[in-house]
Amino acid sequence: MDVFEKALVLHSQLVGKLSVENKMELSSKEDLSLVYSPGVAAPCEEIHKDPSKVYDYTIKGNTVGIISDGSAVLGLGNIGALAAIPVMEGKAMLFKRFAGINGFPICLQTQDTEEIISIIKNIAPVFGGINLEDIASPRCFEIEERLQNIGIPVFHDDQHGTAIVVLAAMINYCKITGKSMSDLKIVINGAGAAGIAISRFLGKKDPNTPNQQIVKELTLCDSMGIIHKNRTDLNGVKLDLLNYTNPRNLEGSVFEAILDADVFIGVSKADLLDRNDIRTMAKDPFILALANPIPEIFPDEAFAGGAFAVGTGRSDFPNQVNNVLAFPGIFLGAIQARAPRITLAMKFAAAEAIAAGISHPTKDQIIPPVMDESIAIKVADAVRNIALNSQV
Amino acid sequence: MDVFEKALVLHSQLVGKLSVENKMELSSKEDLSLVYSPGVAAPCEEIHKDPSKVYDYTIKGNTVGIISDGSAVLGLGNIGALAAIPVMEGKAMLFKRFAGINGFPICLQTQDTEEIISIIKNIAPVFGGINLEDIASPRCFEIEERLQNIGIPVFHDDQHGTAIVVLAAMINYCKITGKSMSDLKIVINGAGAAGIAISRFLGKKDPNTPNQQIVKELTLCDSMGIIHKNRTDLNGVKLDLLNYTNPRNLEGSVFEAILDADVFIGVSKADLLDRNDIRTMAKDPFILALANPIPEIFPDEAFAGGAFAVGTGRSDFPNQVNNVLAFPGIFLGAIQARAPRITLAMKFAAAEAIAAGISHPTKDQIIPPVMDESIAIKVADAVRNIALNSQV
Repeated sequence: MDVFEKALVLHSQLVGKLSVENKMELSSKEDLSLVYSPGVAAPCEEIHKDPSKVYDYTIKGNTVGIISDGSAVLGLGNIGALAAIPVMEGKAMLFKRFAGINGFPICLQTQDTEEIISIIKNIAPVFGGINLEDIASPRCFEIEERLQNIGIPVFHDDQHGTAIVVLAAMINYCKITGKSMSDLKIVINGAGAAGIAISRFLGKKDPNTPNQQIVKELTLCDSMGIIHKNRTDLNGVKLDLLNYTNPRNLEGSVFEAILDADVFIGVSKADLLDRNDIRTMAKDPFILALANPIPEIFPDEAFAGGAFAVGTGRSDFPNQVNNVLAFPGIFLGAIQARAPRITLAMKFAAAEAIAAGISHPTKDQIIPPVMDESIAIKVADAVRNIALNSQV
Repeated sequence: MDVFEKALVLHSQLVGKLSVENKMELSSKEDLSLVYSPGVAAPCEEIHKDPSKVYDYTIKGNTVGIISDGSAVLGLGNIGALAAIPVMEGKAMLFKRFAGINGFPICLQTQDTEEIISIIKNIAPVFGGINLEDIASPRCFEIEERLQNIGIPVFHDDQHGTAIVVLAAMINYCKITGKSMSDLKIVINGAGAAGIAISRFLGKKDPNTPNQQIVKELTLCDSMGIIHKNRTDLNGVKLDLLNYTNPRNLEGSVFEAILDADVFIGVSKADLLDRNDIRTMAKDPFILALANPIPEIFPDEAFAGGAFAVGTGRSDFPNQVNNVLAFPGIFLGAIQARAPRITLAMKFAAAEAIAAGISHPTKDQIIPPVMDESIAIKVADAVRNIALNSQV
C-alpha cells in the first residue's frame, strides 16, 4: 500500500484522530458539583471580575483554534469545509505532539473575507491563539492582517511557517558556504501565501525588527513569469512586491530569473527545472524545491546540475522543509508570554533557533529533522524571550 | 472549605479541565505522513467526493459544540463569553463522562441573534451536534428554532434538558400515586428558557409527536404573576403560551395559581414558598423546587406542608433534577442515528427512558441518581430508535 492507501485505512480505523478528554475523573456527585454546577460558579465569578484570570482557570492559555475555510487545502485546492477537516485534525495532532498544546479544528462554511474575520473575532474567547490554515491567497493576507488586534496571536501558517523554515535553511546555507545573506541573489517561484511571505521576510524592511536580514536581490515569479513593473495583471499584494523585489526590473520567465542566482525557492509546481537549468545558476546554489508531493526538481537531478544542497517538502529526502519545525514552538512561546500577536522579530528569532538546532550543519543536514523534539522547545524559548522583551 | 472554595482550588490546579488528545502516537516521520501531509489528502479527497464520508474519517460523528454567548450563565446572569468558559468546559466533561462524546466549548463575543445564528451555521462542519447553553430568553428560542435545518441537531439544553427530566419525574409521580398525567393541575413558576420549554412540552399539542401527553390545566407564572389574557406586558413567546395555558384565565400571583394544584414546578427564585402555601395545594402534591442553589422551598418545609415528594436541583437532597440525566444520551442517540434534528418525539422518548430507569420508583427516588451510568445508554437507545423509525 502507498502512503495514501495506508492513510485512508488509518483514518477509517480511527474515525477521528482527536479525543477531547477530561483532565480529572468524575467518580462522584461531589466531583460533578466541583467541575460543574454549583461549584463552577466560583471561577466564573473570578473571571467576570478580572478577565485576565481566564488564563488561570480555563483551557484558553493552552488551546489554539485551527481555522480554515477549505479554500486552499494542501495541493487539492478549494475542497470546502468538510473535506478540510482531516488536515486540521492532523495539524491539531502536531500541536499536541510537539508543543503539548490543545489544537481544535474549526472549518468554516463561508469563504467570505468579512464573514471569516467576524467569526474568528467572535469565537476567539476560548482560544489562546488562532492558527489560520489553508486559506486561499490573496484573501489570507487581509484576514490575517485585520485580526492582528484581537488580543491573541493570529498566525497564518501557510505564509509564515514555510517562510521561517526556509529562512532557517538559508541561515545555515550561508554558515556552511560562507556566503552573506544580504548578498544572496534569490529567486522565488510561486506567488501564493508562502512565496509572498518569504518575499516579505527577506525583502521588506520592517523598522521594528532589528534581527531582520534584508536580501538585496530578490526576484519573485508567478505563473506568468517574473513580477515586474511593466505587468498590468498584478493585484494589490503583488504590486506591493515591486517595492522591494526585482531591483533591476528583470522581465521574462523563471528561467531568465535564475541566471546567476544563489538560491532557488520553489513553492510552485512539479518538474519545473532540470540539471541544465541548475547549471545556469551561481556557484554552489541552494535549491529548495518545495512543491508537494512532486518537487520542482528532484535532488539527484539538481546535484547533477551542480547544486550545493537541496531541500524538499518530502520526508524521504534529506532537508525536509516542514512547518512542524516552526509553528508548535512559535505558538508555545507566544502563548506562554501571552503575546497579543506574533511579530516579525519573533518569526526571525524562531528561524534562528531552528537553524541553531543543528550545531554543525552540513549540506545533508541543513535544517533539523522534523522528529527532533528539542526544536519546538528551543523555538518557544526564543519566541517567548522576544515577546517578553519587546513592545508587541 | 465549601463547594465554591474547593471548586476554585481545583480549577486553579487543573488550569483547564479538558485536554485535546491524539488518538494515536506519532513516533516516526511515517506516522506524520499518514495523519498529515501527504497521506491525509486521501480522506480529504474521499470526503470531497462524498460529503457523508466525513462521518467515517473525522471527529464530526462524535463531537458536539457547546456554544454560549455568556448571557445567562447559571444563576450569575450576563457575565460574558470569557467568564462562561468554565461552565462550558464542565459541560464538555459531562458529555465525555456519560456518553463518550467529545464536547468542545465555544464562547461567543457577540450577543446579537443574527450574528449568533450565522456563526453557528458557519462553524458547524466539524460538529455532529450543537448544544446551546446559557443563552438568555427570549433570544434562545429564536436562535434554536432558526438552526433546526442546518443538518445536525441543535438543542438548547437549558430549555429541553430540564423539561425532559421534569417530565420523567412526573411520569413516575403519576405511576406511584395513580394520578393521570392529563388530569394533573400544574403550575410552573418562572417563564425563562426552562419554564417555557416545560410548558410547551406539557401543553402545546404537536401533531408529529404521538407519545406526547398533554396536560389539561397548566398555569405559568412569571415575575409579574400568572400569565393571562388581560396582561399587556407579554412578549411574543409569552403571548403564544396563552393558546395552551391558563384555560380558566386565572389572574393573580403564584399563590393564587397553586390553589388545588397537583404539581408545582419552580424554575424561579429562592425561598418563594413555605409550608402554608403547600397546604393550599391538592392532596399529595409534587414539588419540584429547582431554583439553584437555594430552592423555592426546602424539602423539609415542603413535607411539613403535606408534599408527597420533592425534587430540587441540588445533589444533597433526594430527587436531584439534573440535565445530565438527559443531554448526554439524547445527543448520543441522535448522532448515532445521524438525525438532522432532535424532535419532540425524541425528547418524550428520552423522558420515558429516564423514568423507566427506575423499575420501582418511590417518593425518595422518583428519578434516577445522576451518577447512574446506565441512564445515558438507555436514553440513547430510545432516542436512536425514534430517530431511525420516523421521518425527522
